[in-house]
Amino acid sequence: MQVKEKTQQELSICNHGYHEYLELARSFHGHIAPGMVLGGFMVDLAYRHLPEGEFFDALCETKKCLPDAIQILTPCTIGNGWLRIIDIGRFALSLYEKYGGLGVRVYVDPPKLEPFSELKSWFFKLKPKMEQDRDMLLDEIKKAGPTVCSFQEVRLDPEFIKAGHRKGFALCPSCHEAYPLEHGPLCRGCQGQLPYIRQ
Amino acid sequence: MQVKEKTQQELSICNHGYHEYLELARSFHGHIAPGMVLGGFMVDLAYRHLPEGEFFDALCETKKCLPDAIQILTPCTIGNGWLRIIDIGRFALSLYEKYGGLGVRVYVDPPKLEPFSELKSWFFKLKPKMEQDRDMLLDEIKKAGPTVCSFQEVRLDPEFIKAGHRKGFALCPSCHEAYPLEHGPLCRGCQGQLPYIRQ
Repeated sequence: MQVKEKTQQELSICNHGYHEYLELARSFHGHIAPGMVLGGFMVDLAYRHLPEGEFFDALCETKKCLPDAIQILTPCTIGNGWLRIIDIGRFALSLYEKYGGLGVRVYVDPPKLEPFSELKSWFFKLKPKMEQDRDMLLDEIKKAGPTVCSFQEVRLDPEFIKAGHRKGFALCPSCHEAYPLEHGPLCRGCQGQLPYIRQ
Repeated sequence: MQVKEKTQQELSICNHGYHEYLELARSFHGHIAPGMVLGGFMVDLAYRHLPEGEFFDALCETKKCLPDAIQILTPCTIGNGWLRIIDIGRFALSLYEKYGGLGVRVYVDPPKLEPFSELKSWFFKLKPKMEQDRDMLLDEIKKAGPTVCSFQEVRLDPEFIKAGHRKGFALCPSCHEAYPLEHGPLCRGCQGQLPYIRQ
């Protein structure tokens, strides 16, 4: 039996074959969103430019799609605290060494979108979703891969790195639930910070 | 061959066997955190008391552990927007019908923790992590299951339900990246809202 020669290196995203990653994205995110595909290439690019270190945390600058690519491809999740999101709406992520804070930031670099009209149009929301050519868009993202991104070295603020440990809990005198002591005499739900009413 | 009789119904969490859920938790979250186990029971309880409807979104009131239980057990993730977190530090979640906003909220009900000393101690951070009896804690969470929680009907604010659609993007004149138009003349990164410096 002759083994078929591999003529082209298969596209891969963080040790997953491209199509395998798409299936992971569909399974977790619910569908193969363009932002999940582009996000996969971005996480892969960040991984390939990590500074030295053993433990890395993630910071994501948007809550759209990209956090799910990070959660699928790295050990960092929202719930374990290794992924944090500051949603300023830039499609960018950083992976940084969790003690020293040195990291790599990967972002979509707008001039690099120029050769990819459908991708550029989607990225800047230049036309309504109904008018997008979805197949062409996904095809362009696959062709573009990480070439539409740039990366840079960043250093995270030590205060940010060590933040997040709660000191203790109190019982809220209004709702009788537990809440972090440092929030004051009432929990923030009873201070009006939640968007629902109890029926 | 005699088939061994099943004497006790196996504990389950949203159609997963208990141990199967623990493995999912370990795989996604990195380890079997107490909050992931308790969170699994809470999501299961919410599912069993959903109001009528076909599509449900999730609101989580803490960023610790519980969001990962939601992401594992429901179609709602941070990146697809069906899970939103308002981190006021209460261990509680709501699943709500995504158009009308009627939902069920599940929360840890402190008086119900009384029979479970290790669980109560962990929940209120009454002793340092080093002094916790981890086996006893996980055993108590398994025994307690959803009995330490209560649920209530909630109605989400229509403004909250429909929020989140971005209108378009501009190029930031400072960093030259794309950012949501509605954030003003500079992106929020260049307005100083990010915790890193570029090297």
